[in-house]
Amino acid sequence: MTFDTASLRDPRSKGRHIKACLTQQVLYQKSTGLERFDFVSQALPEIALSQIDLSVSLAGRALSAPLMIAPMTGGDRRALVINHRLARAAQRWGLAMGVGSQRVGIEDRSRARYFELRSQAPTALLFANLGAAQLVKGWGRDEALRAVEMIHADALFIHLNPIQEAVQGGDLDFRGVADRLSRLCEALEVAGVPVFVREVGFGISEQAARQLLACGVSGIDCAGAGGTSWARVESLCADSERERLMGERFGEWGIPTSDSILNVRRVSRSLPLIACGGLTNGIELAKALALGADVGGMARSMLVKACQGEDALNRFIADTLDELRICMFGTGAATVAALRGTVVSCR
Amino acid sequence: MTFDTASLRDPRSKGRHIKACLTQQVLYQKSTGLERFDFVSQALPEIALSQIDLSVSLAGRALSAPLMIAPMTGGDRRALVINHRLARAAQRWGLAMGVGSQRVGIEDRSRARYFELRSQAPTALLFANLGAAQLVKGWGRDEALRAVEMIHADALFIHLNPIQEAVQGGDLDFRGVADRLSRLCEALEVAGVPVFVREVGFGISEQAARQLLACGVSGIDCAGAGGTSWARVESLCADSERERLMGERFGEWGIPTSDSILNVRRVSRSLPLIACGGLTNGIELAKALALGADVGGMARSMLVKACQGEDALNRFIADTLDELRICMFGTGAATVAALRGTVVSCR
Amino acid sequence: MTFDTASLRDPRSKGRHIKACLTQQVLYQKSTGLERFDFVSQALPEIALSQIDLSVSLAGRALSAPLMIAPMTGGDRRALVINHRLARAAQRWGLAMGVGSQRVGIEDRSRARYFELRSQAPTALLFANLGAAQLVKGWGRDEALRAVEMIHADALFIHLNPIQEAVQGGDLDFRGVADRLSRLCEALEVAGVPVFVREVGFGISEQAARQLLACGVSGIDCAGAGGTSWARVESLCADSERERLMGERFGEWGIPTSDSILNVRRVSRSLPLIACGGLTNGIELAKALALGADVGGMARSMLVKACQGEDALNRFIADTLDELRICMFGTGAATVAALRGTVVSCR
Amino acid sequence: MTFDTASLRDPRSKGRHIKACLTQQVLYQKSTGLERFDFVSQALPEIALSQIDLSVSLAGRALSAPLMIAPMTGGDRRALVINHRLARAAQRWGLAMGVGSQRVGIEDRSRARYFELRSQAPTALLFANLGAAQLVKGWGRDEALRAVEMIHADALFIHLNPIQEAVQGGDLDFRGVADRLSRLCEALEVAGVPVFVREVGFGISEQAARQLLACGVSGIDCAGAGGTSWARVESLCADSERERLMGERFGEWGIPTSDSILNVRRVSRSLPLIACGGLTNGIELAKALALGADVGGMARSMLVKACQGEDALNRFIADTLDELRICMFGTGAATVAALRGTVVSCR
Ligand SMILES: Cc1cc2nc3c(=O)[nH]c(=O)nc-3n(C[C@H](O)[C@H](O)[C@H](O)COP(=O)(O)O)c2cc1C
Ligand SMILES: Cc1cc2nc3c(=O)[nH]c(=O)nc-3n(C[C@H](O)[C@H](O)[C@H](O)COP(=O)(O)O)c2cc1C
Ligand SMILES: Cc1cc2nc3c(=O)[nH]c(=O)nc-3n(C[C@H](O)[C@H](O)[C@H](O)COP(=O)(O)O)c2cc1C
Ligand SMILES: Cc1cc2nc3c(=O)[nH]c(=O)nc-3n(C[C@H](O)[C@H](O)[C@H](O)COP(=O)(O)O)c2cc1C
Repeated sequence: MTFDTASLRDPRSKGRHIKACLTQQVLYQKSTGLERFDFVSQALPEIALSQIDLSVSLAGRALSAPLMIAPMTGGDRRALVINHRLARAAQRWGLAMGVGSQRVGIEDRSRARYFELRSQAPTALLFANLGAAQLVKGWGRDEALRAVEMIHADALFIHLNPIQEAVQGGDLDFRGVADRLSRLCEALEVAGVPVFVREVGFGISEQAARQLLACGVSGIDCAGAGGTSWARVESLCADSERERLMGERFGEWGIPTSDSILNVRRVSRSLPLIACGGLTNGIELAKALALGADVGGMARSMLVKACQGEDALNRFIADTLDELRICMFGTGAATVAALRGTVVSCR
Repeated sequence: MTFDTASLRDPRSKGRHIKACLTQQVLYQKSTGLERFDFVSQALPEIALSQIDLSVSLAGRALSAPLMIAPMTGGDRRALVINHRLARAAQRWGLAMGVGSQRVGIEDRSRARYFELRSQAPTALLFANLGAAQLVKGWGRDEALRAVEMIHADALFIHLNPIQEAVQGGDLDFRGVADRLSRLCEALEVAGVPVFVREVGFGISEQAARQLLACGVSGIDCAGAGGTSWARVESLCADSERERLMGERFGEWGIPTSDSILNVRRVSRSLPLIACGGLTNGIELAKALALGADVGGMARSMLVKACQGEDALNRFIADTLDELRICMFGTGAATVAALRGTVVSCR
Repeated sequence: MTFDTASLRDPRSKGRHIKACLTQQVLYQKSTGLERFDFVSQALPEIALSQIDLSVSLAGRALSAPLMIAPMTGGDRRALVINHRLARAAQRWGLAMGVGSQRVGIEDRSRARYFELRSQAPTALLFANLGAAQLVKGWGRDEALRAVEMIHADALFIHLNPIQEAVQGGDLDFRGVADRLSRLCEALEVAGVPVFVREVGFGISEQAARQLLACGVSGIDCAGAGGTSWARVESLCADSERERLMGERFGEWGIPTSDSILNVRRVSRSLPLIACGGLTNGIELAKALALGADVGGMARSMLVKACQGEDALNRFIADTLDELRICMFGTGAATVAALRGTVVSCR
Repeated sequence: MTFDTASLRDPRSKGRHIKACLTQQVLYQKSTGLERFDFVSQALPEIALSQIDLSVSLAGRALSAPLMIAPMTGGDRRALVINHRLARAAQRWGLAMGVGSQRVGIEDRSRARYFELRSQAPTALLFANLGAAQLVKGWGRDEALRAVEMIHADALFIHLNPIQEAVQGGDLDFRGVADRLSRLCEALEVAGVPVFVREVGFGISEQAARQLLACGVSGIDCAGAGGTSWARVESLCADSERERLMGERFGEWGIPTSDSILNVRRVSRSLPLIACGGLTNGIELAKALALGADVGGMARSMLVKACQGEDALNRFIADTLDELRICMFGTGAATVAALRGTVVSCR
């Protein structure tokens, strides 16, 4: 593999993304759609709040709670500080966590150390992360395993983000992507590494879910619209007027998180499913689970709290899990599995 | 039965609740759903307004009108003043009335006298009141009968409030609650005391209605969302920041009153049904009856008027019953039973 | 028949009603529902605007246009001035017209002359008007014929207004009303006077339409909600606080005009049908016709223009008929009958 | 053919229309309805953005992109300047373009030269344009061919605008229009000139689509409501108070563009279909195509940019096509045909 150095990912772009997400209007105007659903309050819960069991398993590993710190960053010093904070929280609370795209760490070995998390989260479920566009360009088994090893990950995310690439004039060729994914899944199954495919926030259609299932993925993160709008982020971080305009125009593009979950579940009742995009508290997390997700992910909400400090982050996670527990108590669900189906669509 | 004195109900909490309900924003933002229904005006009513019969029977007793003063308070001197005023109105207008939870009066005999109402309402239909959480903890037939005797009640309410308990860190174990309810219903049937089960304002699901029917309850008060939000009340009365936050987060939890009525009626067309939660005038009362309730209950509306004085309370009840009569006249319903089904859902 | 003089209609009340309708907020907040329907524009109309035929027949008489000046007033000098102006317009444009309730003219013969219109409208289709409540109290054929003769009417309206009566504490006994209507229809058929029954603005339900059809009425004016709210008018004209409150509370009571039309048409495709309530221009008139009315009526809109002067009134009618013609042109309807069904419900 | 000189089209009216469209509130309040549809984001597009093929064929000619500069103006010097600018853009980008009604150029030969565009767009697909009302008055094959020759057009538009004519008291006789259209289509088929029929912005009903298909048209421009309201334009340009009023009253008349497309497609899946009315960017254009149009047209958006200068116009077209390409990329559509059906209705 050779690389066009000009196309090497600008390591500063991560910093810009984080800054935009912390300080600017990066959210969708359209909602996750979760507000269309209401829990069916159960007046006779027949459970004890203290006995509620939040544990789930994902990628062959046990989590203490159905919550994931979604992939966000990595690859430079500032990102590392935030990621270490997040990793300690993942470890402490028994959550899953992902890192942002490791492309820069693969392309520039000197940057690989800025992805290191294991020191902070010795036993947490960690996901490595590469973009599908790289697969199309020729990356495969080797780079994937290097990414996994780079952070001693337990599983790998391949992220899909065609619209983000399109508005910023990035990688614009996705021909053969399903075929490359199939081959990667096969190769990594041999290596014992589960491959999850994820959107970055434009959602998963029924058709895409069907294709991914056919590719043999171990699971999906169907990150949908209603939270951080990646077209909007790119617009705010744009270098050119044209990118700014395109990002803005496509700021509302995407399948809302609630529809995204339902799309995947229409295709498979059992495929491991993470749901991300616009989750900000434990009630929204609980609704995502009730609609069919196995685990809910949060990116921006976690980032904001991590930047406020370790205490704020821990308090946020504690509150979120308490809210989830109360939702389970209030619907009479003793386990996360029992929570599924406890919502109805309201006016 | 022994009691952990530390867990004894703080008698001051009642006072705080009343103060919050009178002075703060304790209402749901979401509505009862009654505004989605419109009466079908009947241009040819074939009745005389003066002949309209408001009487109904509940718990084996005749009421002059299908209206109840919902359980609210009791157990201290200030509450008693309000309750006496309400009891006199119940007596005067032939309404039903309930008292607030008598737990404190059972746990501390010296407080039992603060529940006394019979002196003011010698013949009104009165409901005693205990929490289902106490049943789970071991209370049963004996405590129930003591509660009934304490106020010379005609019937007993067992209230369900898991979400209220959860947000305030109260009684959090509801395991076996249906079983305990069954046994209590059986025991009190022998004693000739009808047992009604009621929510405090989070509504009754179809499943809960089915369970309660199976328990052998004599009736249900399906108090739903759209009026006083008990999560919000607890948030406003909270001692700790965590309780304040949880109460606020769950401020919109609950099944709207209109849905709550329809849920119960989907399970049984004939089970005696009181509907409470967000009723503020005679048109809303009439809609609740048209949707299937036998009697409508009002808590906060009655409290507010009672605090304005006996005259205001009497005028309010008179107006409410006049409005109900006009709704019946305008739909051609000569009896409360005939009012059922006279609404249609509007845009 | 004897009369309780105390219950004689206060002749001043008409004046108050007119003043309230001209100067205060008497309209429903809820709409006629006509805005939910859109004409299906027909790009190839195959007609000439100048050939469009607005004529219809009603009560056995030809009208030049499907428009009626709805019954409003009469019985005192000031009302007479307005009514004469309206009658001249009816004559000039070949419209139908009704007078307000003639009860006062029957009860007090000296007031009969204040209903006189024929001098101004020698050939227009005129409707006499009595209230159904009077029929229930014992009036019948004789009073009806006196009302018809009083104004040399071609037909008779019997108006229904239970809610208006209820909020003002008026005539509150409608027992036997259908029976009295049946008998009146039979008696007046012999006398050759068509009897139309009308609401005053609370609409006609499917059930009421079925009853009226069974009574043998010659037609219905299904005046519905969305225009002048008669509960609101009564509230504004109330003498007592209680009437004011009840009128206000019931200010939104009623079946919207569009639903009212559809209700009648569900019961009969051919019964002569006038639609009134909230029509303010020719497009709304055209929609009422498209939904199934044969003639549209306007009360308050005509009153307002008549008070602005004869010119304003004539310009208003001319514009209204032009708008109707353009609607017919734009849907390719050469006749009023062809207009039926040219709307679809829009979002 | 003789002409009533008094009815000759005032050549200044075009200037007034343009001025109103540039400086006043000429838009519908109601929308195109396109906002009710959302693209189904496709996370696995399997295409390369650079390989996306925007080319389509229309009226037997190839276009580089499915975009048309809708007919707007012509017939005087000022209009010619704008039209030349638009024609150069059509040529440069390989778009289709139409001229405004050539009636004035037929009636007054000295004005024919103000329609000339071929010098600026030697190979672009150009549409001549006459009104259906003229066909009804007696024009036919000869005038149509003169219009085509006048601008060396490749095809002919016959525009339908009954409501526009009605509100301005223009040509108000459309009797026999379908028959005249049939005959014209037949005659021009012999001459090798495709005839497209178009609305000017009030939309096409299912019935009209069926009639046009039966007339043997080569295609339809179903220009609908949601963009420029021609009743509103006429109101703003009115000479008399009556025209002003009628224009205003009918300002919201018309079938929204999205419904207009669906109406035609319900009648024929394959009839060449241009969609116009309220398209302002490439995402809206893409939605019109996804709903079934073959080409999208823009009038006012193009006019505004053309008046800002050639650069602004070129930038606008470039951005619009880029947005279209991104929509195709984001839904995995490599060709315009593949874009059809990629939207779903959203809440
Ligand atoms: C600062 C930031 C950086 C991100 N970087 C990546 C990334 O490198 N790879 C990836 O798959 N997703 C990335 N994401 C997307 C998130 O994982 C998530 O899908 C998206 O932000 C929607 O979730 P949210 O609404 O909770 O923020 C990033 C998100 C944020 C906020
Ligand atoms: C001040 C106050 C105290 C209450 N206390 C009790 C109680 O002790 N037990 C109970 O079953 N419900 C209690 N309720 C709940 C009411 O009975 C009712 O279900 C709820 O407030 C909803 O009705 P509303 O919207 O009319 O207030 C109380 C309500 C109020 C306003
Ligand atoms: C001032 C006024 C007086 C009215 N008086 C009568 C009446 O005496 N009898 C009657 O049948 N309707 C009466 N109406 C009702 C109207 O005929 C009509 O049904 C109602 O006002 C709704 O129509 P609108 O919205 O066009 O005003 C009156 C209406 C007005 C505005
Ligand atoms: C200034 C102007 C003049 C127009 N003149 C004509 C015309 O002469 N003939 C015609 O068929 N349409 C004419 N149209 C209508 C447009 O082709 C188009 O159908 C309508 O404006 C809706 O599209 P829009 O919302 O993109 O403006 C004109 C539009 C504009 C803005």
